[in-house]
Amino acid sequence: MKRTHVADLIFVPEQVLDARTFDALRDAGADENSARAATRAMLHASRLGIDSHGVRLTSHYAKVLRGGRVNPTPQMETRRTAAGSAILDADNALGHAAAYAAMNLACDMAKEAGVAAVGVVNSSHYGAAGAYALAGAEAGLIAVSMTNTDSVVALHGGAQRFHGTNPIAVGAPVPGHRPWLLDMATSSIPFNRVLLYRTLGRSLPEGVAADQSGQPTQDPNDVEMLMPLGGIDFGFKGAALAGFVTLLSAVLTGSTLDHLMIRMAETDDFKTPRQMGHFCLAIDPDRFAGRALYEAAITRYLADLRASATSQGQSVMAPGDREWAVEAERQRTGIPVDPETAKFLGVG
Amino acid sequence: MKRTHVADLIFVPEQVLDARTFDALRDAGADENSARAATRAMLHASRLGIDSHGVRLTSHYAKVLRGGRVNPTPQMETRRTAAGSAILDADNALGHAAAYAAMNLACDMAKEAGVAAVGVVNSSHYGAAGAYALAGAEAGLIAVSMTNTDSVVALHGGAQRFHGTNPIAVGAPVPGHRPWLLDMATSSIPFNRVLLYRTLGRSLPEGVAADQSGQPTQDPNDVEMLMPLGGIDFGFKGAALAGFVTLLSAVLTGSTLDHLMIRMAETDDFKTPRQMGHFCLAIDPDRFAGRALYEAAITRYLADLRASATSQGQSVMAPGDREWAVEAERQRTGIPVDPETAKFLGVG
Repeated sequence: MKRTHVADLIFVPEQVLDARTFDALRDAGADENSARAATRAMLHASRLGIDSHGVRLTSHYAKVLRGGRVNPTPQMETRRTAAGSAILDADNALGHAAAYAAMNLACDMAKEAGVAAVGVVNSSHYGAAGAYALAGAEAGLIAVSMTNTDSVVALHGGAQRFHGTNPIAVGAPVPGHRPWLLDMATSSIPFNRVLLYRTLGRSLPEGVAADQSGQPTQDPNDVEMLMPLGGIDFGFKGAALAGFVTLLSAVLTGSTLDHLMIRMAETDDFKTPRQMGHFCLAIDPDRFAGRALYEAAITRYLADLRASATSQGQSVMAPGDREWAVEAERQRTGIPVDPETAKFLGVG
Repeated sequence: MKRTHVADLIFVPEQVLDARTFDALRDAGADENSARAATRAMLHASRLGIDSHGVRLTSHYAKVLRGGRVNPTPQMETRRTAAGSAILDADNALGHAAAYAAMNLACDMAKEAGVAAVGVVNSSHYGAAGAYALAGAEAGLIAVSMTNTDSVVALHGGAQRFHGTNPIAVGAPVPGHRPWLLDMATSSIPFNRVLLYRTLGRSLPEGVAADQSGQPTQDPNDVEMLMPLGGIDFGFKGAALAGFVTLLSAVLTGSTLDHLMIRMAETDDFKTPRQMGHFCLAIDPDRFAGRALYEAAITRYLADLRASATSQGQSVMAPGDREWAVEAERQRTGIPVDPETAKFLGVG
């Protein structure tokens, strides 16, 4: 991974970045819907500071659109299977287009059925899971998005890459405020962090990564795989959560298991579709406590959370708080882009 | 907490324990349905080695049945709100009766709607969350059960008890085998473990508990609160998962928030109902990939998991594997019961 000094970053207004990202995807052949969805999801990540899934991925997506892995002009098809369930066949679309369509459908169905889930099949990398949970929350629902990914995380006690970083994202509407928004990998850190620490010559925290024999290591140069959330003593919990994501994204939908999936990047094959599955769920508060009670409860919950005692020098935050703060800052400063991406997008 | 030397344990056949537990609850006034449900859930925990939620709780439930906190003869009511959603008002029943009824209803609805969720209100302590996830899996569905509980876990950076240990349980059917079964607290350890280590004079693992100022401590005598799963560096993930459980169990259903809930045990009030909420979700594989594909996929997933490389001296397990092994052993040996519980149940 190429590292960039902060001084090298170029700050670009969101609107400019949005337009250039969209154009780059269109140039690579993506149809308008695909390009809009991928741009929206990448800008979500870039706005909120999740830069690993931000506009820096544009060149990757252009590559897989051109290589044939991803279908630039998919004919996505939806099959409703019951009042609260559907399968969306993405026809190897950019995963963002599939995931937004699936969440949209889940929300529509949940408004009728109370709860709804959509399984996505024949999809591809979908970027930041939180983009779709946020879309669901903005539609007024409690929304969950997850996807399994190519394997890079050991099982607890394991000595090979087995699960992906398998994110779980949840969004919940908050009246008068940005949503409660969780977007977490089921490993402690992403593999990118290992590469970053290699470049910086820094030691990793304890219990986040292992060498090729599965032994925990803090030396980033020795890392062959990540360890699951929970670390040396409690990694069985992170591994189980990763398995839960695989169960819903791949097993339930009949899609590719993590360890059988073509790698996103560490491969020469950018031609074969990866046939990824995703899962999304939407829950309508109107069908449970009712909107008024829900809104009062989440407002009280967050007020009490924010007023709670903090450890010296620390603060407490609800999921999303850090990201909304980054978003506000970047609205002022523009979005920082590394030189390579800036060059690719023509904003350098 | 009173500790028991292994030598003091009394091994009781499951059938005997089941009958005595049921009788003790009936003696405390519980109607037949309540007593059967609580007995089933406690025996689930005792069989699988989750002794903190096993038959040792019988005396606690007898106390709250007699004290008035729990209604021994509840009139539970179900309100269907849409094809895939319902609210179950437990009328302050034993939580086990409410949770089994809710999961049963969710499974029935999911068979029609593909996916279904039930929010439980006006409930009480429901024991091991996995009991209900298992019930759903045994009915052929992927089933999720969760509940918020009285607060004992700090927020990440926090210095007060805010969330409960807020378990997440998931069960998934496996053809020809016992289900994939996850039942995890969103803290690293339960508070009982702190009490145990106090008695044993042992140091706790790093990053699992904090003193009254919120500083991490490994001295069990200094512990005022637990830390969320993820420990010192990544506890924001465990805190977010605990918050997710609170969102679905309490905020969505309009039930009591963790930090406003009457304590289960550290209180003199065994008269006032705790008005707990629970949440359960059922997903029917028939409405996604279809049963045959689902069964082939989970079989492959588990076979590959069990055949995967292990770190030296370690083994890899799927969620539930450890528990099914304990169950098999206890079928041979009987279930170990501490002397106090044995005396209470008349099996000593």
